[in-house]
Amino acid sequence: MSIHLNPIGFVDSPRKEKKDDYWAEVISVIQLDESVFNAEAIQGIETFSHLEIIFYMDQVLPEKIVYGARHPRNDSQLPKVGIFAQRGKSRPNRIGLSRCNLLKTEGTRLYVQGLDAIDQTPILDIKPYVQEFAPRGTVFQPTWISEIMRNYY
Amino acid sequence: MSIHLNPIGFVDSPRKEKKDDYWAEVISVIQLDESVFNAEAIQGIETFSHLEIIFYMDQVLPEKIVYGARHPRNDSQLPKVGIFAQRGKSRPNRIGLSRCNLLKTEGTRLYVQGLDAIDQTPILDIKPYVQEFAPRGTVFQPTWISEIMRNYY
Repeated sequence: MSIHLNPIGFVDSPRKEKKDDYWAEVISVIQLDESVFNAEAIQGIETFSHLEIIFYMDQVLPEKIVYGARHPRNDSQLPKVGIFAQRGKSRPNRIGLSRCNLLKTEGTRLYVQGLDAIDQTPILDIKPYVQEFAPRGTVFQPTWISEIMRNYY
Repeated sequence: MSIHLNPIGFVDSPRKEKKDDYWAEVISVIQLDESVFNAEAIQGIETFSHLEIIFYMDQVLPEKIVYGARHPRNDSQLPKVGIFAQRGKSRPNRIGLSRCNLLKTEGTRLYVQGLDAIDQTPILDIKPYVQEFAPRGTVFQPTWISEIMRNYY
């Protein structure tokens, strides 16, 4: 089974190359594909404070993709875990997901803050962040990931 | 630009047909594609309480996809908003995203609770839920979506 998707738009970001950390202040623009969409597609979206962005990390080389386990950030001091037990970019299907703040819209453009996708990244979907979709029950995670995330935002 | 993805696995769920509500108690299994993955791909994932699952809603008919605005759940009493300002399934690229509780793993199988994907849904990615990726700053959303979500979980 092969799935064919088309980007719904692209990121216009000041960050041109992959960098692991300090995304919080980055302001970027998601430009919808105007051959398919007009401003109606995002009508009313400013009534939400945050978005969930699903994007395609097309700059990851296919030969770098990990299908088994590895040390996160290739740091041998961190525990070796499965690629689906970490959020590294070298993953099957190369899909990125993150939440960001919506600043404003202008026509088919969304201005967002804190989106960790580099310039020209293809966007697969935009969803409003809905509080009822937050995790239910007690949340826990291993200490190594908090260590990695220390300077991420 | 066309993007080709392969499912990393499929959902085995007791829920065979689309239903809008009452997902909280649903226990389902994500079976990784064993022609590509072994248990290493999810090694250590039980150290996280929750997962973020990205899936492909292949049962949505292409002719039902909305590219502009519509009333959520086609309920004319709700405000008409853009397809990217709501989380309805009839969206471009038909990508679903939700968080669920990880109960346990067995080999290449993940047992999860509260995953709102019907039986045989193709899975595109599995990410551990990481608290630092939660929205930063004040979160707000319109009242109509809280209304919709009242019985979702």
